[in-house]
Amino acid sequence: MAALTLQDLAERLGGTVSQADASFAIAGVANPEDAQPQDLVFLVEDKYLDAIEACAAGAVVARAPVSGKATLVVKAPREAMARALALFAPQQPAPQCSERAAVDPSATIGFGVSVGPNVTIGARARVGRGTVLHPGVVLGEDVQVGEDCVLYPNVVVREGCRLGDRVIVQPGAVIGSDGFGFVTLPDRTHLKMPQIGIVEVQDDVEVGANVTIDRATIGTTVIGQGTKIDNLVHVGHNVRIGENALLVSQVGISGSVTVGDRVTIAGQAGIAGHLTIGADTVVAAKAGVTKSLPSRVMVSGFPARPHREELRRQAQIERLGELADQVKALQAAIAAIQEG
Amino acid sequence: MAALTLQDLAERLGGTVSQADASFAIAGVANPEDAQPQDLVFLVEDKYLDAIEACAAGAVVARAPVSGKATLVVKAPREAMARALALFAPQQPAPQCSERAAVDPSATIGFGVSVGPNVTIGARARVGRGTVLHPGVVLGEDVQVGEDCVLYPNVVVREGCRLGDRVIVQPGAVIGSDGFGFVTLPDRTHLKMPQIGIVEVQDDVEVGANVTIDRATIGTTVIGQGTKIDNLVHVGHNVRIGENALLVSQVGISGSVTVGDRVTIAGQAGIAGHLTIGADTVVAAKAGVTKSLPSRVMVSGFPARPHREELRRQAQIERLGELADQVKALQAAIAAIQEG
Amino acid sequence: MAALTLQDLAERLGGTVSQADASFAIAGVANPEDAQPQDLVFLVEDKYLDAIEACAAGAVVARAPVSGKATLVVKAPREAMARALALFAPQQPAPQCSERAAVDPSATIGFGVSVGPNVTIGARARVGRGTVLHPGVVLGEDVQVGEDCVLYPNVVVREGCRLGDRVIVQPGAVIGSDGFGFVTLPDRTHLKMPQIGIVEVQDDVEVGANVTIDRATIGTTVIGQGTKIDNLVHVGHNVRIGENALLVSQVGISGSVTVGDRVTIAGQAGIAGHLTIGADTVVAAKAGVTKSLPSRVMVSGFPARPHREELRRQAQIERLGELADQVKALQAAIAAIQEG
Repeated sequence: MAALTLQDLAERLGGTVSQADASFAIAGVANPEDAQPQDLVFLVEDKYLDAIEACAAGAVVARAPVSGKATLVVKAPREAMARALALFAPQQPAPQCSERAAVDPSATIGFGVSVGPNVTIGARARVGRGTVLHPGVVLGEDVQVGEDCVLYPNVVVREGCRLGDRVIVQPGAVIGSDGFGFVTLPDRTHLKMPQIGIVEVQDDVEVGANVTIDRATIGTTVIGQGTKIDNLVHVGHNVRIGENALLVSQVGISGSVTVGDRVTIAGQAGIAGHLTIGADTVVAAKAGVTKSLPSRVMVSGFPARPHREELRRQAQIERLGELADQVKALQAAIAAIQEG
Repeated sequence: MAALTLQDLAERLGGTVSQADASFAIAGVANPEDAQPQDLVFLVEDKYLDAIEACAAGAVVARAPVSGKATLVVKAPREAMARALALFAPQQPAPQCSERAAVDPSATIGFGVSVGPNVTIGARARVGRGTVLHPGVVLGEDVQVGEDCVLYPNVVVREGCRLGDRVIVQPGAVIGSDGFGFVTLPDRTHLKMPQIGIVEVQDDVEVGANVTIDRATIGTTVIGQGTKIDNLVHVGHNVRIGENALLVSQVGISGSVTVGDRVTIAGQAGIAGHLTIGADTVVAAKAGVTKSLPSRVMVSGFPARPHREELRRQAQIERLGELADQVKALQAAIAAIQEG
Repeated sequence: MAALTLQDLAERLGGTVSQADASFAIAGVANPEDAQPQDLVFLVEDKYLDAIEACAAGAVVARAPVSGKATLVVKAPREAMARALALFAPQQPAPQCSERAAVDPSATIGFGVSVGPNVTIGARARVGRGTVLHPGVVLGEDVQVGEDCVLYPNVVVREGCRLGDRVIVQPGAVIGSDGFGFVTLPDRTHLKMPQIGIVEVQDDVEVGANVTIDRATIGTTVIGQGTKIDNLVHVGHNVRIGENALLVSQVGISGSVTVGDRVTIAGQAGIAGHLTIGADTVVAAKAGVTKSLPSRVMVSGFPARPHREELRRQAQIERLGELADQVKALQAAIAAIQEG
């Protein structure tokens, strides 16, 4: 890609570049602190303007021309950055099917699928065209994986689960583990509730590294189209996540929760079982949600409540020392009145 | 299993079914919202009666006859559900030993063991009869796994660790990783404390996906018989968990903690190092336990305290605004007295 | 090692042993509660003296002679314990290169490297001399691993990432997963920001089981020399961790955070994105850090604040019931004054 000029980039991303800047040859993309003169940087927020101006990079993508740099002017620099980085990303390896993979003869493998070493594909599994299965991936019996997916090393998809198209699964994630379901008998031992349902991961979902998504007891655990899940998130059995939701790292979603479209749940938050979270709602980091939530609210704290209430509550606690002082002063004043 | 009638089920689970209902042929089990006329549903709590009555399923397992449905009447519907689902669960694959497994010649593999592709079994390891090792499982040297266990794909059991009978380990779980032990030297570097102990997982334990259980520094980390561990739980070195305990997802147990029999620790809670949690105690979700706890208490909050105290504390905080208003009124009253 | 005497140990660790004790033959090392007469125990803190004296072990390492035991007297018993346990630890297996490994012909494997079954090593990867790659390890293209590292089973290092010398990675850890970066478009779908940077793990780092460390969007996520990371920790993209830091289990570090040298972050704590944590600072367990922190402070709570402030705040909350009673008494006193 070393031959890409700023004008080439403008043609691919849209945006405008001055005649003088058009022939700038982009050696690579960089953060400002690491940039070399032939590198391209991105001004995604105005607050970084000083850092961008001061850096060594010769070219920038920004909303307006930056003095001293060849500038590609675009309306949405962050979106342009995403589209530009895709041009500089390492390409997926050419399709291959490793001799060291264990593919059941009854499995159906689409055209152009890449199957890495030590991959296991179970009976009757189906893998759509263009999908990449990195080394150590395990697909159980009857698993379905759509087209143009990427499953990174050591991902496990247990029997019967289904992934849509363009799903990306980071290394070590587990899809379809048994839900945590037991019946406690009179002798206080726990009888396992068999988990005979599946997980359905819809199109364009991304699943983070070492995430765990449990299969339903009966029926289907659903991750809706376009939802993105960060690392080490737990999704319990029979959970239904809507479309384009964001689950940040280390979030825990208990069993049978329903999460609406475009919900954001920030890091280390937890949702108790059987609740419903309305669409477009935001749950702040570390919050613990103990009741169902309507749409379009932001909650924080534990137990979680509307964020403004939580802030007011925190402010009241901050003033506790002052309040205690006021009570002491009142006690003294009353004592003075009573004595005088 | 399509030929199973409600009468067949009654004979396997106990319970009674009316003559008229006995010949109902069960096509499958379903949740009420997905059920078809030939499906069986379960009424495990009375609050779901309306949903069950309204659903399309032709048959139900319940404590009492449900109008309009063929009903199998049982005393404990949830237990009956667990036993019934086991009849509808996919069967484990027939025993096989993959040519793609790497089994050390000094290992001992019992009768009817299934060894999947890309499994590695170390020197002197022993695997008991009927156990299933799914693809990618790694057993280190001298590992012992009992009878009728299921180790799902990519589970790792490091050297010397021991699993009892009927242990189930979900994908990606790690048993026997090094404990987090270091000696900080005067130059502030951290010298590794070698972790030469093991982990012992007793009979009938279930370990969730991507769980980590650290080996003891010296001696044994113990997971007691019948204990069930949910996904992404961390168990530190030299921890001893009693029998039939429940550790819910994302719980963290620091090193050298002792957890009594039948303790429940709810999601995202944490236990500080070297503490003892008495038998039958319950730790609420997200709690942080900083002191040892007696038996048969329920604690919540951080630092964790008896749940009633925590509720009282929360209620006091809720009334803080009111308290501040009362103080303001008192100040006004005193000012009036002082002026008047 | 059964023939090691206490005198042998003194010669290897330093310290002194009386003439009478010198020939004590050490059968093994043990915890006091499990010790047999020929075992060695360690008195690392004076509070365990009673337990040590009462135990069956014949020999002890301690700061001063223990009555009734053959004693190796050392200045730093915990350090001596770490060095002694290394003598009793199982040895790494002899170097081998499994026929069941998939090593790309363009990879460079150093002298004495051990490559276990089902290991995959990508194109142009380099592995330094003496390093051990346990079964199921996956090294992507262009990965560099230094000398004398140990990568336990099923560890994944994605393309381009670099590990220094003497790095230890526990099973299932993922190094180089994509950071959680998306651009939300006007239609509320999330466009993936390609993550084209890498992770650099410097010398003498230890990474816990099922940890996830994300690659940088552009540039490098850095784990500084000598830092130790416990199980199930999440490190986001573009994070920079200094030297000799300690990250305890289930900690979450959001993207672009900078953590100084020798910082300790205790279990289940979280750090919000783009913050800086000064050197030698301590973040308490379960804390949630929402602002950058200077050096040499200890913080706790959520939002995290100086630990003394948090303790004062907690104490004020404890006295809320008392405060409410005082307000009630004041109301009564004023009513009496007003009436009288």
